[in-house]
Amino acid sequence: MLEELKREVLDANLELVRRNLVILTWGNVSAIDRKTGLVVIKPSGVEYDNMTADDMVVVDLDGNVVDGTLRPSSDTPTHLAIYRRFADVGGVVHTHSTYATAWAQAGRAIPNIGTTHADTFYCDIPCTEEMTREQIESAYEAATGDVIADAFEGMNPMHTPAVLVKHHGPFTWGKSAHDAVHNAVILEEVARMASITVALNPSVEMNPDLVEKHYERKHGANAYYGQKK
Amino acid sequence: MLEELKREVLDANLELVRRNLVILTWGNVSAIDRKTGLVVIKPSGVEYDNMTADDMVVVDLDGNVVDGTLRPSSDTPTHLAIYRRFADVGGVVHTHSTYATAWAQAGRAIPNIGTTHADTFYCDIPCTEEMTREQIESAYEAATGDVIADAFEGMNPMHTPAVLVKHHGPFTWGKSAHDAVHNAVILEEVARMASITVALNPSVEMNPDLVEKHYERKHGANAYYGQKK
Amino acid sequence: MLEELKREVLDANLELVRRNLVILTWGNVSAIDRKTGLVVIKPSGVEYDNMTADDMVVVDLDGNVVDGTLRPSSDTPTHLAIYRRFADVGGVVHTHSTYATAWAQAGRAIPNIGTTHADTFYCDIPCTEEMTREQIESAYEAATGDVIADAFEGMNPMHTPAVLVKHHGPFTWGKSAHDAVHNAVILEEVARMASITVALNPSVEMNPDLVEKHYERKHGANAYYGQKK
Amino acid sequence: MLEELKREVLDANLELVRRNLVILTWGNVSAIDRKTGLVVIKPSGVEYDNMTADDMVVVDLDGNVVDGTLRPSSDTPTHLAIYRRFADVGGVVHTHSTYATAWAQAGRAIPNIGTTHADTFYCDIPCTEEMTREQIESAYEAATGDVIADAFEGMNPMHTPAVLVKHHGPFTWGKSAHDAVHNAVILEEVARMASITVALNPSVEMNPDLVEKHYERKHGANAYYGQKK
Repeated sequence: MLEELKREVLDANLELVRRNLVILTWGNVSAIDRKTGLVVIKPSGVEYDNMTADDMVVVDLDGNVVDGTLRPSSDTPTHLAIYRRFADVGGVVHTHSTYATAWAQAGRAIPNIGTTHADTFYCDIPCTEEMTREQIESAYEAATGDVIADAFEGMNPMHTPAVLVKHHGPFTWGKSAHDAVHNAVILEEVARMASITVALNPSVEMNPDLVEKHYERKHGANAYYGQKK
Repeated sequence: MLEELKREVLDANLELVRRNLVILTWGNVSAIDRKTGLVVIKPSGVEYDNMTADDMVVVDLDGNVVDGTLRPSSDTPTHLAIYRRFADVGGVVHTHSTYATAWAQAGRAIPNIGTTHADTFYCDIPCTEEMTREQIESAYEAATGDVIADAFEGMNPMHTPAVLVKHHGPFTWGKSAHDAVHNAVILEEVARMASITVALNPSVEMNPDLVEKHYERKHGANAYYGQKK
Repeated sequence: MLEELKREVLDANLELVRRNLVILTWGNVSAIDRKTGLVVIKPSGVEYDNMTADDMVVVDLDGNVVDGTLRPSSDTPTHLAIYRRFADVGGVVHTHSTYATAWAQAGRAIPNIGTTHADTFYCDIPCTEEMTREQIESAYEAATGDVIADAFEGMNPMHTPAVLVKHHGPFTWGKSAHDAVHNAVILEEVARMASITVALNPSVEMNPDLVEKHYERKHGANAYYGQKK
Repeated sequence: MLEELKREVLDANLELVRRNLVILTWGNVSAIDRKTGLVVIKPSGVEYDNMTADDMVVVDLDGNVVDGTLRPSSDTPTHLAIYRRFADVGGVVHTHSTYATAWAQAGRAIPNIGTTHADTFYCDIPCTEEMTREQIESAYEAATGDVIADAFEGMNPMHTPAVLVKHHGPFTWGKSAHDAVHNAVILEEVARMASITVALNPSVEMNPDLVEKHYERKHGANAYYGQKK
């Protein structure tokens, strides 16, 4: 069932390791098959070294396991909430990558202060609100998806495909699992650059015209970055 | 004598190198056989490259060498004090890993300011008190074990399996040597994230409900992280 | 056409990856054939892994593609402006290397505060002025070349072969593509050292006699560093 | 001539690369044959990749080349001054390793604030005085040796085998070339830890009894670290 998507999700999980975004069993990637509404996700707490495509777990959008012998990632309800709320998302990544997690722990949005950021993320990377005791104690992982969706009120999640969950760490997404991993790589680099930058200049401000230009030249209607498709 | 435990201790020592937690001959791992009360530990000042399981030294809980031709680690009395005081500990690790050592040098506990920390360590990682001249000049390494035990007065050492010895560096422990290494890896990452975080937000505060949630979902009676055992 | 120069430019682009100065498809290197005024440059947004010399694009100094099937780097007009304005430049490199980019984002010149800097760069690495909306909205990449040239008013670009484009990142150059990469490597290391230095001593000042000495012993008329040519 | 020492010096130079203490052609190691007073040193500005033992240059203590076809390192007079002034030194290393160089650029001694430091270096790592214009303009490299010797007035250079040359970078030494490289490795780690520590606690102070204890247990008359010789 969904064998090709399982392989894609496995590959995307292993890329997290290769890109030094996760250690031990941390991190997880999922992808959705929008036709059937089924999601393929990494199993919970399994070592990356011997993981196979068959270890991937298939769940429906309510979280019922429909294929696989292992438990899905404990963060599955957060992935599902993102798929339900953001209709164009095809893949989701969660990591505890060092610098992005530090910004999440600091409770600060990552400011858009350079073209490296603006090339991929149109806005600041938002940091979610404090979760309430009620949210934490019941259906915590689903409620994490709620505070993520709240943080994008009035924003296009496909233009800024990343979020920091306060006190926790980043989630990224994209058109596919691979695309979401790509955004996780860039997020960590952008978070690292931003932490060095604000140490050098705490009151740094971006030129808003540059944000428009860089985002548009790569993602706009008249984009001219890269090769013709 | 204790051949299997010697291999485990050797492997755990070599994992410290692979995980970039030690350079040169720094660092040491031990494990205890609780039935006999015998401890297997790395020899002192030996290069990792050619170390074999036979180089491991067996000592009793009073520090008498009962097997092996090399001197045990000069930190052996500290390991033994931890085994004597913390009855559930099966393995102990000492490193000078960069960020954890910097917190120890700064004399600051590592605050529990994120779920990465709370997933493994329930409380702040305590930093020991200043040692007195008397403690330093006589039986220094055993006295180091005493100040570690003092730092856990009223705390469960298995819920927060790590400590910073002031001006010195970290010790971690766990159910086994491997488990103690695992905790040393996480401690260093948590220390690094915390140093970046406090630079971004010096007055950062954690949500205590999140600490409960994350520690409990992984280690509590109703834990649901990972696979069923 | 220009087959040897294409191989040189390919090699120089791959060296950026080996030296950890670029991730994903970021960064680009070009070289000029001064006899014909033709420039060889990396294609836009192509993966490094399978790139061949044949993928390199040849453009004239007005930006017309004269050889190659792929689109040239979107930064091509900036490279061309540098070749037009700085007559001795043979190769140009653009990266988003972490520390140099952080200084660019902070809008600060990298101060010449050590002999590591002075061995290669005679002056502070200048940071360009804020670009105007007009410059950004029309012929942005060519205008980037203009602000770079403006930053070197009264300075010799071959004595300080690097610049920070504000909010963006570094460009370096040299007698050849390889030389420009070499300068990009040193720039990143100098930027990293400078960020650590100013944290330790915000009011650090250089000894100007040391700058003269180090620059001259390596690049002056009586240079005595390295082997006789 | 001195073939074995040439191989030792070559190996020590290559270890600098393996330990990530140098990039490009930076850094140099030498060793002295105290019987003949001859010094073997790396050639100036040569790539590490193809360097052979035969490329090493032999000079006498006045700097005359007595064997070898290449120019010796431009820092040779500094090495020679160290050998002339510090009678027990057998090997000398110069690097621009990142953190040690940052402290040198900041003009700050590296404070002895932890046992990692005290295990190898008894005192703070001193930073030399500002050099005068006269010193810089005539016989600069020999004068660098003078300010190093001045920084150890009243100190034992074998107990604290490292120095920071202000605005420049570190020199380390030891009983042999290998020992000097070993000290360069530790110096860089100690410099890195210290920079993180002072960010966490700018007014950190060391316990002087711990310095005595750690230095003595490893290097004192009753040392008990490592194996019996």
